[in-house]
Amino acid sequence: MGEFELLALLRERLPAAGPRVRLGSGDDAAITIPGGATATSVDALVEGVHFRRETASLREIGRKALATALSDLAAMGATAGEAYVVLGAPEEAGEPELLEIGAGLAAVAAETGTTIAGGDLVRAPALTLAITVVGHAPRPEDFVTRAGAHPGDLLVVTGALGGAAAGLLLLEDVKLAGALGAVAPGTGSLDPATADALRRRQLDPTPRLAAGAALAAAGATAMIDLSDGLAGDAGHVAAASAALLVIEAETVPIAPGVAAVAVATRRDPLKLAVAAGEDYELLAAIPPEGLGAARKALAAIDTPLTEIGRVEVAEDARGRAEIRRRDGEAVPSRGFDQLRRPRRPR
Amino acid sequence: MGEFELLALLRERLPAAGPRVRLGSGDDAAITIPGGATATSVDALVEGVHFRRETASLREIGRKALATALSDLAAMGATAGEAYVVLGAPEEAGEPELLEIGAGLAAVAAETGTTIAGGDLVRAPALTLAITVVGHAPRPEDFVTRAGAHPGDLLVVTGALGGAAAGLLLLEDVKLAGALGAVAPGTGSLDPATADALRRRQLDPTPRLAAGAALAAAGATAMIDLSDGLAGDAGHVAAASAALLVIEAETVPIAPGVAAVAVATRRDPLKLAVAAGEDYELLAAIPPEGLGAARKALAAIDTPLTEIGRVEVAEDARGRAEIRRRDGEAVPSRGFDQLRRPRRPR
Repeated sequence: MGEFELLALLRERLPAAGPRVRLGSGDDAAITIPGGATATSVDALVEGVHFRRETASLREIGRKALATALSDLAAMGATAGEAYVVLGAPEEAGEPELLEIGAGLAAVAAETGTTIAGGDLVRAPALTLAITVVGHAPRPEDFVTRAGAHPGDLLVVTGALGGAAAGLLLLEDVKLAGALGAVAPGTGSLDPATADALRRRQLDPTPRLAAGAALAAAGATAMIDLSDGLAGDAGHVAAASAALLVIEAETVPIAPGVAAVAVATRRDPLKLAVAAGEDYELLAAIPPEGLGAARKALAAIDTPLTEIGRVEVAEDARGRAEIRRRDGEAVPSRGFDQLRRPRRPR
Repeated sequence: MGEFELLALLRERLPAAGPRVRLGSGDDAAITIPGGATATSVDALVEGVHFRRETASLREIGRKALATALSDLAAMGATAGEAYVVLGAPEEAGEPELLEIGAGLAAVAAETGTTIAGGDLVRAPALTLAITVVGHAPRPEDFVTRAGAHPGDLLVVTGALGGAAAGLLLLEDVKLAGALGAVAPGTGSLDPATADALRRRQLDPTPRLAAGAALAAAGATAMIDLSDGLAGDAGHVAAASAALLVIEAETVPIAPGVAAVAVATRRDPLKLAVAAGEDYELLAAIPPEGLGAARKALAAIDTPLTEIGRVEVAEDARGRAEIRRRDGEAVPSRGFDQLRRPRRPR
């Protein structure tokens, strides 16, 4: 089967195009009618760097690639629109394998109302997915950037953190889950359902599109999705906003089971929650008067929202984020850096 | 140097953002005000598959990646707008190497009025560039797809063909250029300037943006850029338009020097021109009454335009393209297929 036949098969399996798409995949370019303003982001996953075939199915890889790309649109408060997918396939990947990845992409597209409007299929030495996503809003000022956090704003985070990192530890060490009860009896049990939920946080993150839109509508002044870890991503907001972000360590919501995995692997649960990435929750700054509306809107979509700190005046224009324990001690932590990533694939 | 510092360095070297871009690279997403309608296309180049470091400089690789992506916008008659770049970098690629690629991207962006509005930098086993480009037009119907070719339309092609394929042969066999005079004295000499021009056609293609816009304005009914080769790409237009495209072999413009390279390598020059790809010229269908305006507009931008055939009624809805010699013989040829690409990298 050649490129064109396979592309046709992949196209057949996609959900129907959204109303903005006048011409989808198959011509030199897709044609859309974007409306007022667009937010565009691009993300890539590479086998051996961002995932391993031993721990993730092809369908999960397809799902995660699109979900993590869409997470950036969630962080803008955008409505998901279109996605354009480059699939780099090794020679040994046959038609069934590529259709599995396509099925994962198509499922997340259907779940989020995204149209996969174009793509390119190329040979590559390692399975590679590079995805551009386009989101919409009536006006450019409706999007929430990282740059608007203002002294006096509160910091809120959706969901709970550390789950993706704990899930990765469980995936990479299959004996860990079984040993947990014996190794760390004092930290609470890790029942199979909780362990599975942690693994799913790593393999199948959910882009917080509805929560992002709700936080934008409630007046969020700055927002980011937690891909690099709370510490690093708060640092990005601080730098873009030239503000000091102070996060109270004890208020950071930690996902169920993270403590058990942390203790069993001799790690600090808080560090797993703030220094490891890939939770794809949202961190937002919001003026105190917007908090009530934000809480109400997020409760309506069953998404937890936790107040974890505040925005203060920075010492200098570079801005800074700090995670403090109640005793005043700072939590040493750093964000995730693609080029400093250790060799061990995740 | 880490990801964020390097991205900042790359950003510094980009040309200024265009008027549609409200927020460029550096946040979760870029923000643009697209206007009426957008054409979006995505393309990828992979080391060892689409280029080799032995025959292409990093700057040329950066240039070609953006130029070939923009070629798809030229084929829509779009005005180039924004580009979003995924750069997959092997561990051994250092800061100077990545900045060289960035310089190539920035140069083509400046030459074409494209804003590089976002990107992602990841580790990858082979140097990879995946680029999404967005072009603009007032209305969706201003774009020219592959699907509108109508019986009675004339077929025109910009520039001359076969140059990229002949250039590749010269690049892959460095002794070929020197041997040409002796091997094929009857085919005209291949002077160093012509040989160099052929190599440049392979390494540094020009997206025909102005020509594409002019052909669209002159009433082109269907258009495609010649990436897979005239035979294959005419087949795509025929299929999308459900029409028969008849191309007269003797009228196909062949680039200077192609004949010499073809004979020296025991190839048919016409086959080099129609079956090999990467010339990135435009093939358009245009009603006879539009031809005068198209000729005039292309003469004004010094772009050759040649009439090479006509659109006829197809035998069935699948459409078909045929390249005929004057004696009626069809030229056997096939387009380029990514997945059937031979192992030897280009």
